[in-house]
Amino acid sequence: MKRLDTITFTSDFGWSWGYVAVCEGLMTRLSPQARIFHLGHDVPPGDVAAGALILERTTPMFPPAVHLAVVDPGVGTVRRPLALAAQRGDLLVGPDNGLLVPAAKALGGIAGAWLLDLVRVRTEAGLPTEEVSFTFHGRDLFAPAAALLSSGLEPSRLGHPLDPGSLVTLPAPVVETCGESVVAEVIEVDRFGNVGLALRFADLGRKEGFYRVEIVDETLPEWTARVVHTFAELGSGELGVYCDSWGHVALTLKAASAAQLLSVERGLKVRLTALPTAEARRGEDSRL
Amino acid sequence: MKRLDTITFTSDFGWSWGYVAVCEGLMTRLSPQARIFHLGHDVPPGDVAAGALILERTTPMFPPAVHLAVVDPGVGTVRRPLALAAQRGDLLVGPDNGLLVPAAKALGGIAGAWLLDLVRVRTEAGLPTEEVSFTFHGRDLFAPAAALLSSGLEPSRLGHPLDPGSLVTLPAPVVETCGESVVAEVIEVDRFGNVGLALRFADLGRKEGFYRVEIVDETLPEWTARVVHTFAELGSGELGVYCDSWGHVALTLKAASAAQLLSVERGLKVRLTALPTAEARRGEDSRL
Amino acid sequence: MKRLDTITFTSDFGWSWGYVAVCEGLMTRLSPQARIFHLGHDVPPGDVAAGALILERTTPMFPPAVHLAVVDPGVGTVRRPLALAAQRGDLLVGPDNGLLVPAAKALGGIAGAWLLDLVRVRTEAGLPTEEVSFTFHGRDLFAPAAALLSSGLEPSRLGHPLDPGSLVTLPAPVVETCGESVVAEVIEVDRFGNVGLALRFADLGRKEGFYRVEIVDETLPEWTARVVHTFAELGSGELGVYCDSWGHVALTLKAASAAQLLSVERGLKVRLTALPTAEARRGEDSRL
Repeated sequence: MKRLDTITFTSDFGWSWGYVAVCEGLMTRLSPQARIFHLGHDVPPGDVAAGALILERTTPMFPPAVHLAVVDPGVGTVRRPLALAAQRGDLLVGPDNGLLVPAAKALGGIAGAWLLDLVRVRTEAGLPTEEVSFTFHGRDLFAPAAALLSSGLEPSRLGHPLDPGSLVTLPAPVVETCGESVVAEVIEVDRFGNVGLALRFADLGRKEGFYRVEIVDETLPEWTARVVHTFAELGSGELGVYCDSWGHVALTLKAASAAQLLSVERGLKVRLTALPTAEARRGEDSRL
Repeated sequence: MKRLDTITFTSDFGWSWGYVAVCEGLMTRLSPQARIFHLGHDVPPGDVAAGALILERTTPMFPPAVHLAVVDPGVGTVRRPLALAAQRGDLLVGPDNGLLVPAAKALGGIAGAWLLDLVRVRTEAGLPTEEVSFTFHGRDLFAPAAALLSSGLEPSRLGHPLDPGSLVTLPAPVVETCGESVVAEVIEVDRFGNVGLALRFADLGRKEGFYRVEIVDETLPEWTARVVHTFAELGSGELGVYCDSWGHVALTLKAASAAQLLSVERGLKVRLTALPTAEARRGEDSRL
Repeated sequence: MKRLDTITFTSDFGWSWGYVAVCEGLMTRLSPQARIFHLGHDVPPGDVAAGALILERTTPMFPPAVHLAVVDPGVGTVRRPLALAAQRGDLLVGPDNGLLVPAAKALGGIAGAWLLDLVRVRTEAGLPTEEVSFTFHGRDLFAPAAALLSSGLEPSRLGHPLDPGSLVTLPAPVVETCGESVVAEVIEVDRFGNVGLALRFADLGRKEGFYRVEIVDETLPEWTARVVHTFAELGSGELGVYCDSWGHVALTLKAASAAQLLSVERGLKVRLTALPTAEARRGEDSRL
């Protein structure tokens, strides 16, 4: 197999206490030619779907690479350790909990899957096979596997082939049309407090005017939001609906946090209902 | 133009959710030989002046490079996308909102300015020209431009020349002498709680003894601070005035946060008044 | 001396405001061939022991390297600036406050020690010798020294040899057996809220069953914890004792923060007392 000199690394380890660094050090030792890029290590702890979303968005921007990803709440259990090959030529390494599959699809689809064998990986890496933790397979299994694959080792040297149809997949985030309304799950709250929804902007019924915004199953106030193209179209304190940079519907508040205003976080569901012009105007008046 | 194999990258994106990574991946794909350094991505959201200060301080330490910087609250509006050439040989890429100019001056002065053309940049980069967001020019315009410039492409291939005199500049932070006192804006609160002022230490009237410290326009207590050279000269709980590592006047508290003690943040103004020895001693007594 | 093309960099600077970047820029300028890895810059401010622990854990994973580490509450005082050589071939650069010694031991032991001379370092680096801060030796002394050593310069060119026996060392964290109990200091609270103790798991009396968990010298409730191998063995809300990935005893809570439950932080002491089966069961009942 040809070398893949780029390695990307994603986890929920945070940068504190050296968890990222021990993996990076080991990979650098085993695969000195590799360039390692950090996609992010502040995935919410144990939030596999958040990690999967970040990988799906970012991996296609890189050249073909080995993508190491560790968001692994099932570490030490029977959940399977994986290597996947993607059609574009990338390899993905991590736990079989749904973390890798969306990225593999974004990279052209799954071209192969292997169950990593701990003893084979550590033997190929020249590491002792008995000193293995139950809680840090990032260091003890996945990082060595990623480094070896980066060096050009065939995945078949590190484990047995798997049926891609047997891989764990995550449930899709909720997007439901209910009469006049659409309900969509919050999939992202970014640093600016913008609230990204599972709904694609292309699938939003009306691309102008006003929407009523409600949080499903929570006793929270309703809001009125206006469809805009840019943040600058909004007045101070005005809530906007826009097409975010991933092509999804998102909510924003001028120079403030929409997530804080709406009291929403990842996983909650938002109902958007298109308002007729008159009602929209009344809604806007009552807000001011 | 010769290649600039170093790229630095500064933003207010934070590391979450892959915003930094998509830009880095794209640059690595377009300019594989470039080494990318992160100057910091936790610029306070939308705080152009903070980003400008970080760039001004850090870019001169690097070898000549392409400096990509995105703190861009006006994204999607008429604010102009820029490439600047600095006398030292660096190129700077980012929005025309004052972010780049102080760094360009610190790098020897502005040697050229260009208005980046979205279609030209994306065409040169081999990217589709129709799929462009209104909210993420970091990915869609600035990162590709930075990568192309790093590869040695002439800035004139990516846009039209601009009069450097037409560039947006930021107002200078406040520094005013008022009789016996000097009033200076807080330009930085670092991780240790040290409070950096816009006033240069060389311009501080007296380099020893005590100062009265007041926060302008806020009903907050006054404090007495002693001029010191090192943190170690201070007693526990004692407030110090010192020359920080950028040559500015700063306030510090032994093993605690001066910013928290004084209830100050970036943008507030601090008044320093030199105290005669006797009054200083009384001030110190009342504090203890 | 042969070149060491890998530099690692650890500090308590945080990524804000460019303190890390100025050091990295300077090193890149002085030693362009070096690859710089960040082990972490969010060491708790001034916590030398935390920095030492991170260095001890992570540096052996890297190939032989120059390890720059700056957690330096005594900056500007008489504390000595150091370069150490480790038996494995690494060099370590930082203040003489105990930060470097555990890592040097983990890298095979100390093979040499030098007192860095500010004038010599800056002269060799081509930097002015008069513009030196009292508060940022990371930039003004340690980073230039690390870059020069990476380039292959002999440590003896940068300072005088020191007796390794004269180096400052940190007190070992508390581990005490008191009758039926063992008391151990909290040395780490990770991002998941797991509480790492100074006690090695190999030294834990009983490797199964239940332990009573008390926080020493604090009026806090007692808890019962069960010895487990993996997080998955725990029920929701159940406290576990396990062997962490560094071989130490740690406390964990299923999908929640054990540190928050126990109200502990680094430096507090935990008493573990093995429970007889019946009492253990009663303890568990009362908790539910």
